[in-house]
Amino acid sequence: MIGFCLVGGGFIGPLHAANIAARPDARLRWIVDVNLAAAEALAAKHGGRPTGELDRALEDDDVDAVMICTPPRTHASIIERAAKAGKAVFCEKPIDLDMARVLSCGDVLDAAGTPFFVAFNRRFDPSHRALHDALRAGEIGQIEMAVLSSRDPEISPPDYVAAMPYGIFYDTMIHDFDMVRWLMADEPVEIIARTACMLDAVTNPHRDPDTAMVMLRMAGGALVHVNSSFRAVYGYDQRIEVFGERGMLISRNRQPTTVERYGADGVRQDPLLYFFLDRYAESYARELGEFIAALSERRPPPIGFDDGRRALLIAESAVESAKSGAPVSIPA
Amino acid sequence: MIGFCLVGGGFIGPLHAANIAARPDARLRWIVDVNLAAAEALAAKHGGRPTGELDRALEDDDVDAVMICTPPRTHASIIERAAKAGKAVFCEKPIDLDMARVLSCGDVLDAAGTPFFVAFNRRFDPSHRALHDALRAGEIGQIEMAVLSSRDPEISPPDYVAAMPYGIFYDTMIHDFDMVRWLMADEPVEIIARTACMLDAVTNPHRDPDTAMVMLRMAGGALVHVNSSFRAVYGYDQRIEVFGERGMLISRNRQPTTVERYGADGVRQDPLLYFFLDRYAESYARELGEFIAALSERRPPPIGFDDGRRALLIAESAVESAKSGAPVSIPA
Amino acid sequence: MIGFCLVGGGFIGPLHAANIAARPDARLRWIVDVNLAAAEALAAKHGGRPTGELDRALEDDDVDAVMICTPPRTHASIIERAAKAGKAVFCEKPIDLDMARVLSCGDVLDAAGTPFFVAFNRRFDPSHRALHDALRAGEIGQIEMAVLSSRDPEISPPDYVAAMPYGIFYDTMIHDFDMVRWLMADEPVEIIARTACMLDAVTNPHRDPDTAMVMLRMAGGALVHVNSSFRAVYGYDQRIEVFGERGMLISRNRQPTTVERYGADGVRQDPLLYFFLDRYAESYARELGEFIAALSERRPPPIGFDDGRRALLIAESAVESAKSGAPVSIPA
Amino acid sequence: MIGFCLVGGGFIGPLHAANIAARPDARLRWIVDVNLAAAEALAAKHGGRPTGELDRALEDDDVDAVMICTPPRTHASIIERAAKAGKAVFCEKPIDLDMARVLSCGDVLDAAGTPFFVAFNRRFDPSHRALHDALRAGEIGQIEMAVLSSRDPEISPPDYVAAMPYGIFYDTMIHDFDMVRWLMADEPVEIIARTACMLDAVTNPHRDPDTAMVMLRMAGGALVHVNSSFRAVYGYDQRIEVFGERGMLISRNRQPTTVERYGADGVRQDPLLYFFLDRYAESYARELGEFIAALSERRPPPIGFDDGRRALLIAESAVESAKSGAPVSIPA
Repeated sequence: MIGFCLVGGGFIGPLHAANIAARPDARLRWIVDVNLAAAEALAAKHGGRPTGELDRALEDDDVDAVMICTPPRTHASIIERAAKAGKAVFCEKPIDLDMARVLSCGDVLDAAGTPFFVAFNRRFDPSHRALHDALRAGEIGQIEMAVLSSRDPEISPPDYVAAMPYGIFYDTMIHDFDMVRWLMADEPVEIIARTACMLDAVTNPHRDPDTAMVMLRMAGGALVHVNSSFRAVYGYDQRIEVFGERGMLISRNRQPTTVERYGADGVRQDPLLYFFLDRYAESYARELGEFIAALSERRPPPIGFDDGRRALLIAESAVESAKSGAPVSIPA
Repeated sequence: MIGFCLVGGGFIGPLHAANIAARPDARLRWIVDVNLAAAEALAAKHGGRPTGELDRALEDDDVDAVMICTPPRTHASIIERAAKAGKAVFCEKPIDLDMARVLSCGDVLDAAGTPFFVAFNRRFDPSHRALHDALRAGEIGQIEMAVLSSRDPEISPPDYVAAMPYGIFYDTMIHDFDMVRWLMADEPVEIIARTACMLDAVTNPHRDPDTAMVMLRMAGGALVHVNSSFRAVYGYDQRIEVFGERGMLISRNRQPTTVERYGADGVRQDPLLYFFLDRYAESYARELGEFIAALSERRPPPIGFDDGRRALLIAESAVESAKSGAPVSIPA
Repeated sequence: MIGFCLVGGGFIGPLHAANIAARPDARLRWIVDVNLAAAEALAAKHGGRPTGELDRALEDDDVDAVMICTPPRTHASIIERAAKAGKAVFCEKPIDLDMARVLSCGDVLDAAGTPFFVAFNRRFDPSHRALHDALRAGEIGQIEMAVLSSRDPEISPPDYVAAMPYGIFYDTMIHDFDMVRWLMADEPVEIIARTACMLDAVTNPHRDPDTAMVMLRMAGGALVHVNSSFRAVYGYDQRIEVFGERGMLISRNRQPTTVERYGADGVRQDPLLYFFLDRYAESYARELGEFIAALSERRPPPIGFDDGRRALLIAESAVESAKSGAPVSIPA
Repeated sequence: MIGFCLVGGGFIGPLHAANIAARPDARLRWIVDVNLAAAEALAAKHGGRPTGELDRALEDDDVDAVMICTPPRTHASIIERAAKAGKAVFCEKPIDLDMARVLSCGDVLDAAGTPFFVAFNRRFDPSHRALHDALRAGEIGQIEMAVLSSRDPEISPPDYVAAMPYGIFYDTMIHDFDMVRWLMADEPVEIIARTACMLDAVTNPHRDPDTAMVMLRMAGGALVHVNSSFRAVYGYDQRIEVFGERGMLISRNRQPTTVERYGADGVRQDPLLYFFLDRYAESYARELGEFIAALSERRPPPIGFDDGRRALLIAESAVESAKSGAPVSIPA
């Protein structure tokens, strides 16, 4: 039985709270939010004690793990406080947006020997995972190319965009960078990025890139393309295609229903699931299970600090290439 | 908050217990099973008190509803005991296999004014429901034909088959008969059935039909075909197609992943989900939610006694036609 | 090089004329039509001499084969004249709608030893044929069930309907009856048919059945369902599904393009090909090639007189069942 | 009626000869090949007079158009001879691999006022064209990204590769470069290319790139990705995806049949068509029709000299970028 302290009751917090509550091998002990009302509402629904003070929860011996669902800029310090309190950490990506801060945080984790998990949830999607497992089993032999499409139906609100320029790399494609590393079991050595502002000035007032393509060269020679957009009107579009010497594997999108509608104007199926929490619902439930299993069996969580660091490094390199126009080498 | 007494800890009982436990608006109060160990195991996992005696649970004022997951021949008497104790009833189909017993059970329900739900779970499958809603919205206008395929990957064990001859109609197609009534918002007036024994004598020692087709004529004139088999090696095959004056709607099968595998021998996708509890997992969760909502809002559950009676009547008519070879009129 | 006399320049005649003209191993020698202008127009486009008199063409030694594209009631006498003139015969189905006339025509063919081909073109569709070949190769083992959907987008004009009552069996499902025999390599022994009039009185003034379902039992025990409609607004719907002990084979519809259109309202693909001449264009070209190959290699054409007779017999039995309501045994 | 002189009886020559022969509005007058036997064989099958001397054919007043199917390095001089003889020209791409030679050839064409067609056949594929037409009709509004996959099942023989280094750009992606210009109705202003040698040294002894990705930036700001490989074991893989402000359009691959095979190991469909002449059979027939229509109606053929020049320019820029590693600006 793993006791959780969940920090951050907004956005993705409620999803994780519900997932913890639904498991027979976990308990929600505390919900921490500076907005106490949010913590209270969540606690009323899924259990746990609400508080505005993290330290109170960290003092509780029944708390085995801290789950961090707060905004990115707060991650590093909460990670460190949890580590120093001897708790395991489940952290939404990124660790931080500043690499120096990431590295200092890593030192604290190392010193404390903290079991640390950075929540690249897509690795736990059943289709992406089946593709991964087929690659590892050698189904298509040597991997030669990959094409990832990763498109959101909407851009984030202006405040959110202002707080994280180049979010298309730092917030969105960072998932794809992690997927590329995991799927190909290889590291990218070069990246070239191009961006565009396609949305109008009302929707994207800061003129932050809302459209992007990158090309990656992997250490083993394979070539990778990733594209993103913040305007996929047909839903949250998440596809992975990997090509190799003996074939191709594709993880397609999932639709809410399997209904086909035949009419005089053609055959129509559902639009894609619109919201990423719906699209990846299974992956969120499964990543929690994997984290709990790792803690229970005293082995390291399946995605660790260095995975978080590497993905951020690739995102940083993408930004640099997008700004300069030149290819950027990614340090080992 | 609805308190449940679950009766029958085998087969589908654990699924319903987990679904109750996962809801914030329901509590599992008692688990009743003549095999006390089964009740205890389930209670340890999902809560509730285990007992071998139904009466103990029925005396508990915190029990609002009885969920019946026992073998079919026990349904009617448990329904009646629950009704007399003033509990709402959620009952796996069928009410009973004998029509006279069904009718006497109905009298008890009437007298007690019991909120009664017969669990034709397929009505709650998201794709089937989307098809239903499109029909009701008139998307294809007048309904003219329907084709339902309803195939299990395996036949039941010999003991189970021996206990319910013509199970292909009483146990399997009974779901389709309910779907036809619900989807078409019409009643069948005639049925013609044909069966075959295609499995070998080891797998099907009682030579009970393992393959069947029926043709139904609806009161409104539409024609319906249903086919079933107990040997779909590619998984649990559940498809519905409705044709009308302005088009066609199809509810297709769902596969575990969306992965496509391109190789020299073609393009391969997953086999279908093999087990009906997996295929209809969402429908089981949703039917429970609908039952709870009906009780909470003091309205009748969405599938009632007469739906159970009508589906059985059609199954009986199918058996009669299969035996005699002649078309059988279905009484109103 | 096979010389053809084509009789009947309307409807399907131009298609066959173009197919003959496109082949390097065939020549269009004569085009016979009582409407001489039609024959002339066709000859101007694809070659051959136009005439209103069949005998002139039959006297020509360069004519090896007569291709009959006239209305059904004229088939038998043209077949007999061609047979007596020593020509091979390629005849659009049916041989005749009256069984006695079919049999007397068969006697003439027998006496003359005529190479005779009845043009059940669907056997030459690449997808249907691949399904057939997979069945013969034993891919799904023992055949247990088949489901055929065979729907036209429109009903024929009133005059055509008046001239052939129950055309849904005699003109449309007769193709499916042939497919069932060919695919399953077995003969049906029983048929049960139901029909409905779903179209309005303006479109279907003679109230001839425009919607039909049949259930067939095969000699080997397999069960077969066929459905037809004259109102598939989404195009010419032609699907075959065969189920067996080791799996299922489906021959799906073909669409004009492979374009998928993703929008806020869903994912849309083309409607089906609307016109049967488009849907089965390849099958028409291939059946001609097979007929020519058979003549060239002096072997019997791949679909013969008895195939035509059997399909008509099943259609007759369907009509009888639809009228009486009772199952009808099909004589061997 | 357009009279053709076909030059080059190998590889794609027979396909074009058959397409000319099948049309009622065209005649094959001459077949020119330095290998007279090849010309004779083709003439025996599809008509026309065989010769080893182009001039004999060019002197024939019944020749309206010269169709050039010879190896690339001979194109320019044949074009010029045909132009000077006053014939229209249908030329397989490229005009030449050397830009200076292309330009001098263009001067000759200009001077002669020759109706000139460069055969980028993919523009005439029904699915690609439907996608194009939907874009022009504004179905997805502003175009923002495109992803093209263009993969061959095999690399060309070593001699062919040796004669045209970087054939993956000059011979394969040149088609995609043309498609990008045509689909987007815009010109690329920048290209970045990366290549790899993934095949073994026996299959690819010259170590010419067999795998490639490019990223293009269009004048209007849209971003484009193209990938190619010479080892798609599952067949000739040709997909186009265009993303815009109101949705996405995809032109998928076509398979030989529509058969689905359901078994215990999953659902299997055909591999893709393997040979490009099969995959694009319709496009070859249609491009010929369009060329003939343009000549007949005395309007310029739909793909002209400048289209050939631009596609080559992009291919040259791709090679330059692949060699230098740097992004390359494409001159207007």
